[in-house]
Amino acid sequence: MQLRRFCSGTIEVQRNPSFSEITSDDIQHFVEILGEKNVVQDEDRLLAANTDWMRKYKGSSKILLLPNTAEEVTQILQYCNRRCLAVVPQGGNTGLVGGSVPVFDEVIINLGSMNKIISFDNVSGILVCEAGCILENLDAFLANQGFMMPLDLGAKGSCHIGGNVSTNAGGLHFIRHGSLHGNILGLEVALPDGTLLDMLGSLRKDNTGYDLKHLFIGIEGSLGIVTKVSILTPSRPSSTNIALLACKDYSSCQNLLVEAKRSLGEILSAFEFLDSDAMDMALTHLEGVRNPLPPSLYNFYVLIETAGSDESYNKEKLEAFLLSSMEDGIISDGVVAQDINQANSFWRIREGITEALTKAGAVYKYDLSLPVKNIYDIVEEMRSRLGEAAKVVGYGHLGDGNLHLNVSTPVYDDAVFTKIEPFIYEWTSKHRGSISAEHGLGLMKANKIHYSKSSESVQLMASIKKLLDPNRILNPYKVLPSSMLFND
Amino acid sequence: MQLRRFCSGTIEVQRNPSFSEITSDDIQHFVEILGEKNVVQDEDRLLAANTDWMRKYKGSSKILLLPNTAEEVTQILQYCNRRCLAVVPQGGNTGLVGGSVPVFDEVIINLGSMNKIISFDNVSGILVCEAGCILENLDAFLANQGFMMPLDLGAKGSCHIGGNVSTNAGGLHFIRHGSLHGNILGLEVALPDGTLLDMLGSLRKDNTGYDLKHLFIGIEGSLGIVTKVSILTPSRPSSTNIALLACKDYSSCQNLLVEAKRSLGEILSAFEFLDSDAMDMALTHLEGVRNPLPPSLYNFYVLIETAGSDESYNKEKLEAFLLSSMEDGIISDGVVAQDINQANSFWRIREGITEALTKAGAVYKYDLSLPVKNIYDIVEEMRSRLGEAAKVVGYGHLGDGNLHLNVSTPVYDDAVFTKIEPFIYEWTSKHRGSISAEHGLGLMKANKIHYSKSSESVQLMASIKKLLDPNRILNPYKVLPSSMLFND
Repeated sequence: MQLRRFCSGTIEVQRNPSFSEITSDDIQHFVEILGEKNVVQDEDRLLAANTDWMRKYKGSSKILLLPNTAEEVTQILQYCNRRCLAVVPQGGNTGLVGGSVPVFDEVIINLGSMNKIISFDNVSGILVCEAGCILENLDAFLANQGFMMPLDLGAKGSCHIGGNVSTNAGGLHFIRHGSLHGNILGLEVALPDGTLLDMLGSLRKDNTGYDLKHLFIGIEGSLGIVTKVSILTPSRPSSTNIALLACKDYSSCQNLLVEAKRSLGEILSAFEFLDSDAMDMALTHLEGVRNPLPPSLYNFYVLIETAGSDESYNKEKLEAFLLSSMEDGIISDGVVAQDINQANSFWRIREGITEALTKAGAVYKYDLSLPVKNIYDIVEEMRSRLGEAAKVVGYGHLGDGNLHLNVSTPVYDDAVFTKIEPFIYEWTSKHRGSISAEHGLGLMKANKIHYSKSSESVQLMASIKKLLDPNRILNPYKVLPSSMLFND
Repeated sequence: MQLRRFCSGTIEVQRNPSFSEITSDDIQHFVEILGEKNVVQDEDRLLAANTDWMRKYKGSSKILLLPNTAEEVTQILQYCNRRCLAVVPQGGNTGLVGGSVPVFDEVIINLGSMNKIISFDNVSGILVCEAGCILENLDAFLANQGFMMPLDLGAKGSCHIGGNVSTNAGGLHFIRHGSLHGNILGLEVALPDGTLLDMLGSLRKDNTGYDLKHLFIGIEGSLGIVTKVSILTPSRPSSTNIALLACKDYSSCQNLLVEAKRSLGEILSAFEFLDSDAMDMALTHLEGVRNPLPPSLYNFYVLIETAGSDESYNKEKLEAFLLSSMEDGIISDGVVAQDINQANSFWRIREGITEALTKAGAVYKYDLSLPVKNIYDIVEEMRSRLGEAAKVVGYGHLGDGNLHLNVSTPVYDDAVFTKIEPFIYEWTSKHRGSISAEHGLGLMKANKIHYSKSSESVQLMASIKKLLDPNRILNPYKVLPSSMLFND
């Protein structure tokens, strides 16, 4: 079978013939475990669960399971493992690389019904909850307690914390709160053979043996299904300030980052950048968006957020930073949001770029991690490579060395695509970058892992996959090249 | 063979008979790889390398190897694996659980000669260095660049960064900078079979496949030898302030922690506590130490450090916090250090407790992690259990839920020991705590892993050990129960 993606070539993938096909006996067995209403065969609901968020991938699963407890998840897995039925775990289904939908007829296990908060300790800030909790709901719960989730991303209204863990989600506050590997304190995970692995500690420190939970962070559901999460949450800052700054060139953006880390240090909570093409996209295609720094376009814009425990001090500090950066010539212009509406309008520019690009036509999306000093080189290389044929837009989480490079054309064009790939991956590999900073590999990039990981590393990943999932039933065809898993 | 520890019972361990004994041919082979002078057979140097920092454990290795490069490490391992020669990797040898010295005749590989800084990026703060670099030297190097190491511990003058990674070291600034799982960006690791695993990325974000480096953090050298490290370093704060506060009871310490996180939030960089018995120990046994809060002893003391980018603001903020905590009755007294000497004298009390305990006689040491609200219960339980027979001292990293519980007696007493163990482990297990918050398991606690980890988890650890180290040559008898590794 062949899958066709909307705008970046074709992925060929073969159904693993050793997987069984689902039978009415299987369905009867699932009904016994979950009850009738949690075994979904309704066409509309199946279509939604088979289709990814970008509507680029569509599987053909005939069954959607909605467990209510971790025990039910283990019973399903134990059965599927014995029957050799392939399984795709699904959270909010907001991924960008086709990781959370079936490729063929995999059984879909959606964790959405497992959405209870189990405990919150307001001394330590440790939250324990089920995997199906929606990120935004958890943050709203914590807001009432004076705490916040340590991650924030565009999909927060639908993504699940279990999915965030499984994909090691990054997002907007990564520069301040860091990776989930640092914030996740414990997990409960259902293994492919139905074993329930209790690693649900809620301790900040625990050096007793191998810290296995890390094995299940960012593996895109291919080694186990996260059923419960214990996470360290920081105090909610009482004050937040946003500034939008303009720089004349990329090296000024870099200098600004160094200075911001030095002088804002402990209150810096976001450092995002966009180039003039990205700004132009937002201004052209989004309603009600305007550039607060008129009249002409600058080459680069940086959005800085500070967050802390002292309103007036934080604002003064950000304003002073802006002033001194102006005097030093690092920035050409800048404005601090005066109220929450203006702050939201600044964020709207940055967060609206994806939407603007979609409206502009076909888009070829890349999510690269590179040493900060090299980040913008690839945007310029790509521009000179593509010439007038396409618009190249660069933006992203500069503070984390994470570039979202997007190429936009009025309609999809194979000629443009072949000029982008594999060049962009080869270039990234040469500069020891990552071809997927935060989106993961999913189905889309499983075969491209070698651009960012050594063959010894990929070999070890495959060995671990085989150890934990001997029948390879969990999220097949994703993350690792199928050739390493289905040909022995 | 039987090993006798100074003050906490006996550990019985059997040499694995499938390991070879070293021959003159082996030594000749090592000389060919490393050169004569890096193959040490000198008795005095061997004695030092065979003996642990606390002088409780003494192995009988006949050979100490000093590789200069990662390639030499891989050649040694490849040879040892083929010959079935057991190996113990050694860094600064400052561990507290017997993890870094041989148990029998293991080949010692000390990384001390691999101590070069490879690169530092002053935009991102990313440091790449060899594993044998001493923590304090790295911090001194970074100080010149306006950055700092994200971890700090008592042994900083001798411990190696490779050892820190292998033991997932915690320390004094954990509350601010978090776990090494969040700060380590990349590793190069020599596997038991001699494969060199290049995971030495220096990117903050990289979601391409399984993040294997976490498999080698905190595994106490039992799955691979860390040869190079890439680590994210924070900006060095331009101002640091210290206060010593007194609380009347433990629940006030807890309230103080909540308030400190809320109002000092982003500048809080240490939150340590000690009880009056710990203070008394320091005052009695350490020269030149005095309590800055006279005249009488309070029940609890808390040491708070703030660090940030603004001298006057930070000090004012800490003083205001002290004042409001006093007014609210959370603290009974408190003083902010007026200069660096006074700051050092406050730290001297907290950091000197270990030394004071050693001077006081025999000491039974425990390093527990517990939910903050339960932490002091075990100290009180232990006091009522032991009565007049012993002094029970509680101190540690309260901000991280990490208690150092120490029992002191004039001379070692088996009767006291049997009242402590296994009670203390059972109690900790019952409260879902960790029996080793930051010290690791090493030889001392390998058989006690079940108190903190589920049997399914320990089983999976053993499977991973067997996958990566089929001949079990790396750091045998440590971390995992030998019965799980040598009886099949």
